Amino acid sequence: MLKLYIGNKNYSSWSMRPWVLMTQLGIPFDEVMVRFDSFGPESAFKATLAPITPVGNVPVLVDGDLAVWDTLAIVETLAESFPDQGVWPADRRQRARARSLCAEMHGGFGALRSACVMNIEASLPTAGALALRDQPGVRADLARIVSMWQELLAHHGGPMLFGAFSAVDAFYAPVVMRLRTYALPVPDDVRAYMDRVCATPGVKAWIDGALAEHDFVDFDEPYRVAP
Amino acid sequence: MLKLYIGNKNYSSWSMRPWVLMTQLGIPFDEVMVRFDSFGPESAFKATLAPITPVGNVPVLVDGDLAVWDTLAIVETLAESFPDQGVWPADRRQRARARSLCAEMHGGFGALRSACVMNIEASLPTAGALALRDQPGVRADLARIVSMWQELLAHHGGPMLFGAFSAVDAFYAPVVMRLRTYALPVPDDVRAYMDRVCATPGVKAWIDGALAEHDFVDFDEPYRVAP
Ligand SMILES: N[C@@H](CCC(=O)N[C@@H](CS)C(=O)NCC(=O)O)C(=O)O
Ligand SMILES: N[C@@H](CCC(=O)N[C@@H](CS)C(=O)NCC(=O)O)C(=O)O
Repeated sequence: MLKLYIGNKNYSSWSMRPWVLMTQLGIPFDEVMVRFDSFGPESAFKATLAPITPVGNVPVLVDGDLAVWDTLAIVETLAESFPDQGVWPADRRQRARARSLCAEMHGGFGALRSACVMNIEASLPTAGALALRDQPGVRADLARIVSMWQELLAHHGGPMLFGAFSAVDAFYAPVVMRLRTYALPVPDDVRAYMDRVCATPGVKAWIDGALAEHDFVDFDEPYRVAP
Repeated sequence: MLKLYIGNKNYSSWSMRPWVLMTQLGIPFDEVMVRFDSFGPESAFKATLAPITPVGNVPVLVDGDLAVWDTLAIVETLAESFPDQGVWPADRRQRARARSLCAEMHGGFGALRSACVMNIEASLPTAGALALRDQPGVRADLARIVSMWQELLAHHGGPMLFGAFSAVDAFYAPVVMRLRTYALPVPDDVRAYMDRVCATPGVKAWIDGALAEHDFVDFDEPYRVAP
């Protein structure tokens, strides 16, 4: 059985991507949760991952004695191993576009990612409004997200970005979480897409898991103190 | 014919990756050089790219009316289109590992990348020594590079990281350039690999192009003023 090492569901945006993808597409795996105690060299988190991955990050996909780290490598490996599961769109051109969008997410949106860290159970509209008011990079990232999603939804007619659920929806699912937590303003068609993503069984299962955690991690909470 | 949009060869580390890969593997393409005047919204650079890519970055691979942006998407698209060219290692497990390493490069090594920006024609040993002395992140990035390369060279026996030249060597070629420019200390086996990479025809052709440019771009020169 494949094993997927992940971090806290409330906070770990990178872990969310392959977990949601595999769950939604029906690719069986065992989840191994590695709690975020800290990311310091002495942490239990790093000690648990040390024998498994040279980079000490989650997610990691483990298949027997083969470890695949980093979301993009995990997604491509799944696409190879489960060619009929629809990880990528079937059409060659759409697949190239889908890969461009996932790679863009992987290396980009730095302003949004650092101002609006993922925090599924929280509601932080003031932090969102301030980020939007004060940070041109956050405004640019939001504008790019909105125009990307609108164009894809118009082109494919929904319900997901490339019609059926694919790796692209999984890659942008943590962005959906951020837009909600920080109450960033989006047009109605984008809001409707976000609602559909949240209602997708694979995404809903992750959100439910996050809400059930009740594990407040200070270093992932720039806007709140522990209750 | 495929077209590859790239930036200045002396500075554009992301452009270098697919250019070197395609050249070395014999995948034919026309090069379109988009000079770095600035990355501002009014720049000729952004104006040239605006009709081609929604993100305004190089590299972009253009195949008729299909644009593929971002190095990782370009590499995967090439691997699909040219399955016999050896973009990835042939073995499934080695391929998964190769993808992990390229994705690690794509999203990581932030300290090394920002302290030691690629600058092929320059020799900046003092900047390198200071970065190493003062920045733990640069030391950690260098240590990870050295151990990664040593392990791969020992496992596959060279000459390249996975035996034959692959996307992984192309992805780390700009790191080879940085280690040389900033004279960062490496063990002999790593030095020998770096020398072999630089002598590879595809890499050598890029370096020769960079040296022929003589186009000093201030915003990519944190350590020098224009001569
Ligand atoms: N590029 C990596 C990023 C993974 C990542 O940064 N994961 C975070 C958790 S969401 C982590 O493990 N951080 C540990 C650390 O920063 O030391 C990927 O796509 O998988
Ligand atoms: N993640 C992208 C990064 C591309 C990138 O940052 N390219 C630089 C040149 S090396 C660029 O076009 N920068 C323009 C800008 O920052 O506005 C990739 O892998 O292709």
